[in-house]
Amino acid sequence: MKKKNRSNKTKPALSRTKFALKHTARHGDKPAKSELKYLPWNEVELETLNPLLQRQLIVGHEVMLARVLLKKGCVVPMHSHVNEQLSYILEGALKFFIDGKEIVVRAGQVLTIPPNMPHQAEALEDTVDLDIFHPPRADWLNKTDHYLRK
Amino acid sequence: MKKKNRSNKTKPALSRTKFALKHTARHGDKPAKSELKYLPWNEVELETLNPLLQRQLIVGHEVMLARVLLKKGCVVPMHSHVNEQLSYILEGALKFFIDGKEIVVRAGQVLTIPPNMPHQAEALEDTVDLDIFHPPRADWLNKTDHYLRK
Repeated sequence: MKKKNRSNKTKPALSRTKFALKHTARHGDKPAKSELKYLPWNEVELETLNPLLQRQLIVGHEVMLARVLLKKGCVVPMHSHVNEQLSYILEGALKFFIDGKEIVVRAGQVLTIPPNMPHQAEALEDTVDLDIFHPPRADWLNKTDHYLRK
Repeated sequence: MKKKNRSNKTKPALSRTKFALKHTARHGDKPAKSELKYLPWNEVELETLNPLLQRQLIVGHEVMLARVLLKKGCVVPMHSHVNEQLSYILEGALKFFIDGKEIVVRAGQVLTIPPNMPHQAEALEDTVDLDIFHPPRADWLNKTDHYLRK
């Protein structure tokens, strides 16, 4: 079946599948293929990028889920990336500068950010942000995201 | 730039971008291209599939975020789909049957499900589940997901 097949056809269940449950690979490494993984957030590595910014990564094959913790006053500088992004604020508030506008995204709200659209974010409060990316952020995985490490 | 380019290169900010903030398209329609959208969950349509199952959809171009509300006892029958899936339980607990195993995923825990892997889920409590899909679930968008509407 082609990777980009969008038929979304629901198929009958198989009694066995070809994937094994992996209790390894818990720490944000990008799997070469998609794997079944069970991951409590409290067992996922917490990476400190600067004194105001931490994150955890759960990495699929084509999507990545990041739990980003920003202390009040944290500024993520203006940047862009090829990855499509959805940001869902679970706690706190982020003020985005994007597309010539200020948009404050609060708990219970989502911002969808197209590929290559420059954006900056500032934490107005201590914030828990879920970021979803397609594809996974290679710069976050290979730690070349220098714009966050200042 | 190729769609599947994984360089993730962080580029300098542009003063203007080609996308406009859309306050429309709030109700789960799949955009033909990726758009900047600001979406409070309480303004996103809540779809009732059966007496125990409701959901809301935020649809990007290559990813879809679903907020799925399951009442205790709700069973999502065994099914599979071409879409890669990440399920993050925010409240409650889901018991999955997948890959020949039972896996209970509770609040604060995530399950990553590869494409085409059959799975069933049962709500052990009233549950709030975030589902992330790549690509967006065509069957959820065009309402051909009959397995959920019983």
